[in-house]
Amino acid sequence: MGIKAFAPATVGNIGIGFDIMGLAIEQPGDEVIARLSNTPGVRISNITGAQGKLPLEAHLNTAGVAAQRLLAYLGEPGRGIELDIHKKMPINSGLGSSAASAAAATLAVSELLRTGLSKRQLLPFAWEGEKIASGGQQGDNIVPSLLGGINLIRDNESMDIHRLHVPRGVYIAVVHPQMEIGTREARALLSTSIPMDVHIRHNANLAAFVLGMFNGDLGLVGRSLRDDVVEPQRAVLIPGFYEVKEAALNEGALGCSISGAGPSVFAFCANSLIAENAGAAMQKAFAKHKLESRLYLSPVNQEGAVIC
Amino acid sequence: MGIKAFAPATVGNIGIGFDIMGLAIEQPGDEVIARLSNTPGVRISNITGAQGKLPLEAHLNTAGVAAQRLLAYLGEPGRGIELDIHKKMPINSGLGSSAASAAAATLAVSELLRTGLSKRQLLPFAWEGEKIASGGQQGDNIVPSLLGGINLIRDNESMDIHRLHVPRGVYIAVVHPQMEIGTREARALLSTSIPMDVHIRHNANLAAFVLGMFNGDLGLVGRSLRDDVVEPQRAVLIPGFYEVKEAALNEGALGCSISGAGPSVFAFCANSLIAENAGAAMQKAFAKHKLESRLYLSPVNQEGAVIC
Repeated sequence: MGIKAFAPATVGNIGIGFDIMGLAIEQPGDEVIARLSNTPGVRISNITGAQGKLPLEAHLNTAGVAAQRLLAYLGEPGRGIELDIHKKMPINSGLGSSAASAAAATLAVSELLRTGLSKRQLLPFAWEGEKIASGGQQGDNIVPSLLGGINLIRDNESMDIHRLHVPRGVYIAVVHPQMEIGTREARALLSTSIPMDVHIRHNANLAAFVLGMFNGDLGLVGRSLRDDVVEPQRAVLIPGFYEVKEAALNEGALGCSISGAGPSVFAFCANSLIAENAGAAMQKAFAKHKLESRLYLSPVNQEGAVIC
Repeated sequence: MGIKAFAPATVGNIGIGFDIMGLAIEQPGDEVIARLSNTPGVRISNITGAQGKLPLEAHLNTAGVAAQRLLAYLGEPGRGIELDIHKKMPINSGLGSSAASAAAATLAVSELLRTGLSKRQLLPFAWEGEKIASGGQQGDNIVPSLLGGINLIRDNESMDIHRLHVPRGVYIAVVHPQMEIGTREARALLSTSIPMDVHIRHNANLAAFVLGMFNGDLGLVGRSLRDDVVEPQRAVLIPGFYEVKEAALNEGALGCSISGAGPSVFAFCANSLIAENAGAAMQKAFAKHKLESRLYLSPVNQEGAVIC
């Protein structure tokens, strides 16, 4: 008998907010079951859906580390916990799968031990888990996966995080082509400086995006949801990316860019009908490049991780 | 007999929004009087308060060009207009004096000719006037001077401009030390690229600033109102800048940075009492560097240019 938690996939960056913004969708996501055990410490007894690509050693696994950090905080580092991890989303897909496992594990263990901690209070432990996978401390996946919503992470160190207003109806289409890109590889590709004029233009769009979301001005959101900084550098890793993007925009998507480090591509849409059309068109464009793909349609998930 | 218009000084950049944000204060500002004349074309008959430093030739003067552009738009390029310009603010001070003259002239001429155009409709003509002074097309002074408020200029070309919500009570202290910095000089000093990590941190602060303003979260405004990009490059032009800034922050200012291209320094404050204390402390700090200064205290001016 154990406690099962679900944590959703997330779209990191959202095009305009590299390393500082992310949003949660409803599906897919990971499930983690936590059980008490007589063997001291955290043990991962089973991982499904990862084709053997994820470590069973707790201290190398995002879910395992998150659980360990929570136990340490509770003053029970030797408490026996067993985790089953059911990856129900592709890994290395740009959908924040490592964060989802960390978020689900943290919540499941907290519930199992009846800590009474809120999800916001659990964030530091989940975040520690996520860090060992991403090679950095960006919160653009872990924050929305655990807490839900569209989030701005102003500062990682102090966890200065904020939720953006989401205009009614906003719907996300995410298309995952059947290929993998590692976060570390995608990050290594980025140039270490950007031209001042690009910086200024990006600033203008970013500020306008936040303003447009608050005012429910979707025209403004559409004009400003663009990434001239990171997207051009990473697009080369995704066959047919610009055709996929054009297909989404042609269907009326407000914006379309790479989800996290890719290869998933998201379209940010004013409503579910546009998202469905955009999603289908994006899949078609990938197919022209001989890439099978999977489509996920979802409103912004405002709940984040849940016990189920 | 003529029509007199007043247009206020402005704080361009507001630290966090280089070239894309600006706000209007209530005083100081420029006055322009427009009169009909029998001599065809725009003529500047008098400029006071500029110590002879501004051109009387209409096509070289921001007010003159703005008036010319408006006449051309109205299909009356030969219409005789005389302008008196009363500079009631220091030039090359970082307070947008060239924009204020252009804004006031545009409004005065429009009223004189009873065009029925709104200030938003007059913006393109005032902006054309401003361009000849600033050597660029940034709207961070002209937009707030004409229209008032705290503005985001997403795109200059399409004049995609937006007003930010201003939390109740916000008050600005601007201190102008008795020295001059030319906009072109200050701009030439800027590096043409910035490190990616600085860009990302700046993005996070900018998005948080907009969010904090909307939510009335002045703590967040205070944490995010900072400029690690342009301020460090321009601070060298202003003797004692960092002491002035520290003085303002010590008095509780939410943020303090260079107004436009400087040398004026502004403090963004939660209320008028803090602004007054911060302003006095800033003047004291400048005095230690043998710089006399003038202090302007003001809420955000929501009106912009007015007929008076």
